[in-house]
Amino acid sequence: MRKCIATVSVSGTLTEKLAAIAAAGFDGVEIFENDLISCPLSPERIRDRAADLGLGIDLYQPLRDFEAAGPATLKHNLRRAERKLRLMERLGAGTLLVCSSVSPEAADDDELAAAHLHALAELAARHGVRVAYEALAWGRHVNDYLHAWRIVQLADHPNLGTCLDSFHILSRGSDPIGIEAIPGDKVFFLQLADAPLPAMDVLQWSRHYRCFPGQGGFDVPGLVRHVLNTGYRGPLSLEVFNDVFRQSDARRTALDAMRSLIALEEALDRRAPGPVIPTGFAFAELTTGTANTGTATAARTGGPSAGDTVPPASGAAATLVGLLAALGFTRTGAHPTKPVEMWEQGAARILLNATGTEAALAAIGLETPDPAASVRRAEDLLAPVLPRERAPEEVPLEAIAAPDGTQIFFCRSGRPDHPDWTGDFTRGPAPSSGCVTRVDHVALTQPWHHFDEASLFYRSVLGLRPLESVEVPEPSGLLRSRAMAGPDEGVRMVLNQARVGAGQTPWQHVALACDDLRGLARRLCAEHPGLLLPIPGNYYDDLEARHDVGPEIRELGLLYDKDEHGEFLHLYTITVGRVFFEIVERSGGYRGYGAANAAVRLAVQHARGPGAP
Amino acid sequence: MRKCIATVSVSGTLTEKLAAIAAAGFDGVEIFENDLISCPLSPERIRDRAADLGLGIDLYQPLRDFEAAGPATLKHNLRRAERKLRLMERLGAGTLLVCSSVSPEAADDDELAAAHLHALAELAARHGVRVAYEALAWGRHVNDYLHAWRIVQLADHPNLGTCLDSFHILSRGSDPIGIEAIPGDKVFFLQLADAPLPAMDVLQWSRHYRCFPGQGGFDVPGLVRHVLNTGYRGPLSLEVFNDVFRQSDARRTALDAMRSLIALEEALDRRAPGPVIPTGFAFAELTTGTANTGTATAARTGGPSAGDTVPPASGAAATLVGLLAALGFTRTGAHPTKPVEMWEQGAARILLNATGTEAALAAIGLETPDPAASVRRAEDLLAPVLPRERAPEEVPLEAIAAPDGTQIFFCRSGRPDHPDWTGDFTRGPAPSSGCVTRVDHVALTQPWHHFDEASLFYRSVLGLRPLESVEVPEPSGLLRSRAMAGPDEGVRMVLNQARVGAGQTPWQHVALACDDLRGLARRLCAEHPGLLLPIPGNYYDDLEARHDVGPEIRELGLLYDKDEHGEFLHLYTITVGRVFFEIVERSGGYRGYGAANAAVRLAVQHARGPGAP
Repeated sequence: MRKCIATVSVSGTLTEKLAAIAAAGFDGVEIFENDLISCPLSPERIRDRAADLGLGIDLYQPLRDFEAAGPATLKHNLRRAERKLRLMERLGAGTLLVCSSVSPEAADDDELAAAHLHALAELAARHGVRVAYEALAWGRHVNDYLHAWRIVQLADHPNLGTCLDSFHILSRGSDPIGIEAIPGDKVFFLQLADAPLPAMDVLQWSRHYRCFPGQGGFDVPGLVRHVLNTGYRGPLSLEVFNDVFRQSDARRTALDAMRSLIALEEALDRRAPGPVIPTGFAFAELTTGTANTGTATAARTGGPSAGDTVPPASGAAATLVGLLAALGFTRTGAHPTKPVEMWEQGAARILLNATGTEAALAAIGLETPDPAASVRRAEDLLAPVLPRERAPEEVPLEAIAAPDGTQIFFCRSGRPDHPDWTGDFTRGPAPSSGCVTRVDHVALTQPWHHFDEASLFYRSVLGLRPLESVEVPEPSGLLRSRAMAGPDEGVRMVLNQARVGAGQTPWQHVALACDDLRGLARRLCAEHPGLLLPIPGNYYDDLEARHDVGPEIRELGLLYDKDEHGEFLHLYTITVGRVFFEIVERSGGYRGYGAANAAVRLAVQHARGPGAP
Repeated sequence: MRKCIATVSVSGTLTEKLAAIAAAGFDGVEIFENDLISCPLSPERIRDRAADLGLGIDLYQPLRDFEAAGPATLKHNLRRAERKLRLMERLGAGTLLVCSSVSPEAADDDELAAAHLHALAELAARHGVRVAYEALAWGRHVNDYLHAWRIVQLADHPNLGTCLDSFHILSRGSDPIGIEAIPGDKVFFLQLADAPLPAMDVLQWSRHYRCFPGQGGFDVPGLVRHVLNTGYRGPLSLEVFNDVFRQSDARRTALDAMRSLIALEEALDRRAPGPVIPTGFAFAELTTGTANTGTATAARTGGPSAGDTVPPASGAAATLVGLLAALGFTRTGAHPTKPVEMWEQGAARILLNATGTEAALAAIGLETPDPAASVRRAEDLLAPVLPRERAPEEVPLEAIAAPDGTQIFFCRSGRPDHPDWTGDFTRGPAPSSGCVTRVDHVALTQPWHHFDEASLFYRSVLGLRPLESVEVPEPSGLLRSRAMAGPDEGVRMVLNQARVGAGQTPWQHVALACDDLRGLARRLCAEHPGLLLPIPGNYYDDLEARHDVGPEIRELGLLYDKDEHGEFLHLYTITVGRVFFEIVERSGGYRGYGAANAAVRLAVQHARGPGAP
C-alpha cells in the first residue's frame, strides 16, 4: 500500500523533513500547515522539491472550525478556504483535511454542518480538490467517526468523503467494526497513530506532574485556609511527585520548595506586606563578549579612566552597536571604570558591556519604589543577593540572581529621593528623538528543569502574574513559553523553557515598544535590510487568508496578531550571539506577545543556524 | 507554621535528600518507604542524621491496601503493620500514613474498613504512633476526603485521624469547604501539592504522546483491517504528535516510522512469513577496553597467531576475568586472530574482547534456526547490516546493529546443518560444571529518545513480545524499563530508558540463570565478598514484613520477588565500567525480572558513584 507520513511526525524544517521522509522510502506526505507557513520556499518550489525526492503531497491539513458556524463566520471561512484551495493547486495537493469544529460558536446541527461542507466541496471541486472530513475525539459536537460519516452522507457531494484516524477512533474506545459500513470510495484518507495505554488519568497526573504550591493551577491557599479554620496547627508538608524535580539538583529543588511555602504562608496572612512590585525597566544590559584583548585587559584593570573613549568595538560588539544605531538609539554615556556604554532612546536604555564570552542578555534593571525593600523581599524568598564591586563614589545598586543566572538590579532612576545610578556614567549627547519609547518586555530562556522554579521566583519575589503557558512548535521540539506581567503591565517578562537534550541555542531577546513601527520598518528596509529577520512569503499568504490586513504588512516584513482587545505589529532583528531585538507596537490594549508568530520566527532562526545572525 | 517535605519531592539518596532539605530550612520530613529501604544506614542512624540536621521525621509513608481486606489478608496486614510500627519507633516517626486501598480485594464496606483501622490504631497506640488515613483520588472505594473522614469517625479511636492532601482533593474537583466540618485535632496531617491545569485529557494525550503503530497499546492492525474491508485502497498515512520525536533526528524517526508501516502491512497479511524468532543466547560479548598497548597493537595487526596466549589482562579486563572465575566460568578458548577469549559455564558463553574504550556489553549472539533468513528479515525491516571483517577460513557470522549500537549476531551453534562459529576459536579446557546454566536475559540501556524505536525494533525484527513498561525510581530520576521475550522465553531482553540530561551512567547487564543460587551465594560470600553488590539491611526488614522468607536470604545478601506463578531469587555483582552481572534463579514459572528490587539496586549503585564498581 502507498505509505505516507505527516510532516509533523518528524523534526526539522520542512525541507529537512522532506529529505528524511524520502530517505526512509515513503511515497508521500501530509503537509502540516505550520511547516508550510514557516518555509521560505514558495508552494511551487515545495511541490518541485517533493517531486524531485519522489514524494507526492497526499494531504494538506488542516482546515479547522469550519462547519456549522454562524453566517458571518461561514463567509469568512469560505474566503479562507478559497485561499487554501488556491494554495493547494500550487502545491499539487489533492485532498484537504477538515477536522470537526471545536469552536464554541459551532451549532449542534448536522443539517447545517452538511450544508457548509457541501458548499466547501463545491468550491474544492472547482480547484480539483477532494475534502476529507474527520471527527476529532474532542470535537465540540462531532467527535465520533460514524457521526462524521452521517454528515458526509447528508452533504452528499462527490468531492466530500471522510478521513479516518486510528487515534481519534481508538482513544475514545469506539468499536472500529462500524467502519465496514462506509463504502471504501468514501474513505478519502486513513491516518494512523498508536498511543501508550493507559491514557493520562488522575494517577499519572499525580505521579508525574505535581508541583509546588504557586507553580500550578490549584487554589492551594484556599484549601489551606479551610484546614486552618478547623483549628489544625500541624505542619504544612509538601508531597510532590514530579519527573523533572526527580532529576534536578536536590538543594535547588529544596530551596524552591521552601520558597513556595513562604509564599503560601504570606498568601494566608492578610496583613503580610507582599512583594515590592517593579514599575518598569530601568535598563537591559547586554554583554558583547571581550572582542579584543585591549578591552578585556581594560575590564580587568578597572577600565579606561573617566572621559576616555571605549576602544572601538569589533565582532558582536560592532554588530550590536550597528543594530542600536539603526534602531535610532544614541550612545549617551560611558562608565568611568567599567567597559560599559549606555545607549538610549525614549525611556529605553540598553547597556553594552564589553565582557563575557558571547553576546548575551546578562542583566536587567527594574524600577522599584524602594530598592532596599525589594532586596529584603528577595532575601526573604531565598533569592541569592549578589555581591557587587563598586568604587566608593558609585551609587549603591543592589542585585539578585534570577534562577537562570540573569542579574536583576533594583533601581530608582531620576528621582530626587534616591541616588540615581545613571549619575555614575559620564554623560554624552542627549538621545535623539525616535519612535522607540521603552522596553516592552524581555524574554529569557530557562533551563528545562528550572522553568517552574523561575515562574514561582518571578511571581513571589517580584509579584508578576503568570499568564497561561503556551507551547510553540519549533523545528527541533516544542517550546514552552509563559508570559508574566506586573499588575499595571509596567514590567513584562517572557520565560521560555529550553528543551532537554543538546542542540538548542537558548535565545534571549529584548522587545522594544514603538509608536510608529511602520515608519521604523520602512526606514530599516530602505537603509539596513540585512538587520531584519526575513519572514517567509507563505506566512503572509496565510495571514491574508485569516485576517483582513493590507499589503503593507507583507511589504515591510512585519508580523501581525490580534486579540479581543486590540492589534499587535512586530518585527525581529537578526541574532547576535544569543540575543536579538524585537520591536513591537501594541494598539487598542492588545495584551499578548505575538505567540502565534513565534513558530515562524523560530523556524527562520533555526534555518539560519545556531550562532548565525 | 512547621514546614515539612516528603523525601520523594527531591532527588538523590536519602542522605543527600536530608542534607538538601535541611539546608533549605525545613523543620521536618515525610520519609518515603522506598528511600528508607534503599538506604544503607540503620533506622537509628537515619533518625540521628535527621536530628543532627535539625529535622524531625514527621511522617512515615505509606501503608497501602490496608482497610477492608479479607480475613487472611487482614492478618498479613497487621503483621506487616507491626513490623512497620517497630521500624517507626526506631526512626522516631510519630505518624503513619495509610492510603485508602486500591486493591480489588477490598470490600466496599465502611464498617469493615473502620474496624480494620481501629485495630491498626490500637496496635499503633502501643508503639506511641498515630495513624493518619487518607483518601487517594483513585482509591477503589474511598476516594473522597469526606468519605475517609466518615470512616475515621466510625472507627472512633484517639490514635486515628485523617490526612488531607491538596492534590487528592482538588484534582477530583471536590469542594474544600467541607474540610471545615472536621475538628482540627482529627486532622493529623496536611500534605500540599499544586498541579498544572488542565488535567491530562484526550487532547493532551493526542498532542504529545502518539507513537507509531506497534509502539503503543492500540490494535491498529485490527482497525486497518476494517478499513480495507470497505474497499479502501488509499494510503496508510502516519500522523504522530510526539514530544520526543519532535526532538530526535528526523532521518532516524522517518526510518522508525517506515519500519512500523512495514510491520503493520505484515500483520495484515496472514500469509506473511513473520519474524525468524531466536531460540536462545549463543553468547554475550563484553569489551574490556584496551588495557595495555600490547593488546591494542595485537588487535590492529591481526592479534596473536593461533595457540598464542592473550597478554595478561589488567584493569577492567582483570576484574571481569576475576568475576567470571569467581562465578564458576572457565576460559575455554581464544580467537586466533582477535583479542577475544571465550568463557563458558553450562550453556552460558561470555566473550571477553580486549578492545573498546571501557568495559561494556558490545554484542550479543542469538541462536536462530536460520541465520541467513534472520539477516534478510532484519534488512527487510531497515536494520543496518554490519560489514564484518573475517579471515577466509572463518565461519561467516552476520550481524546487525540494534538501535543503541549493540551488535546482534545470528548464530547456529553446534548443529551439523550449519558451520559452527565456535570452531573459529582455539579450544582450551572443557568448562567445569557449575550452577550457572545459561544466559537468562540481557539488559540494555537505550538513549532516552530511542526507547520506542528500540521496542519496535526488537518486536518487529526478532519477534519479541513487549511486556508492560514499568517505572523504577532511582535517585536521579525515574527509569522506564520494558522487558521483551520470545514466545518460549528462550530470549529475554530488558530495555531501560536512559534519562534525559546528563549524569547518568547507562548501565548494562548480563543476567545468568542458575540452579543453585543459595550455594553460589554462600561460596561468593565466603571467598569473594567484595564482588557482590551490598544490599541494605532495611531492604530485608521490609522484605520480611511483606513476605514469609527465612533468614538465609538476608545472610546471603540475596534479593527476592514472587509473582502469581512462582518465586525469584537474584543477586548482583559489582559494576565494571558500564557492565555488571546478575545471577537469577527462577522457580515455579516466575515470569518477571525482579523489577520490585531494581530501585534498591539502583540506589546502591548510585551511592557507589558512576564508574565505581
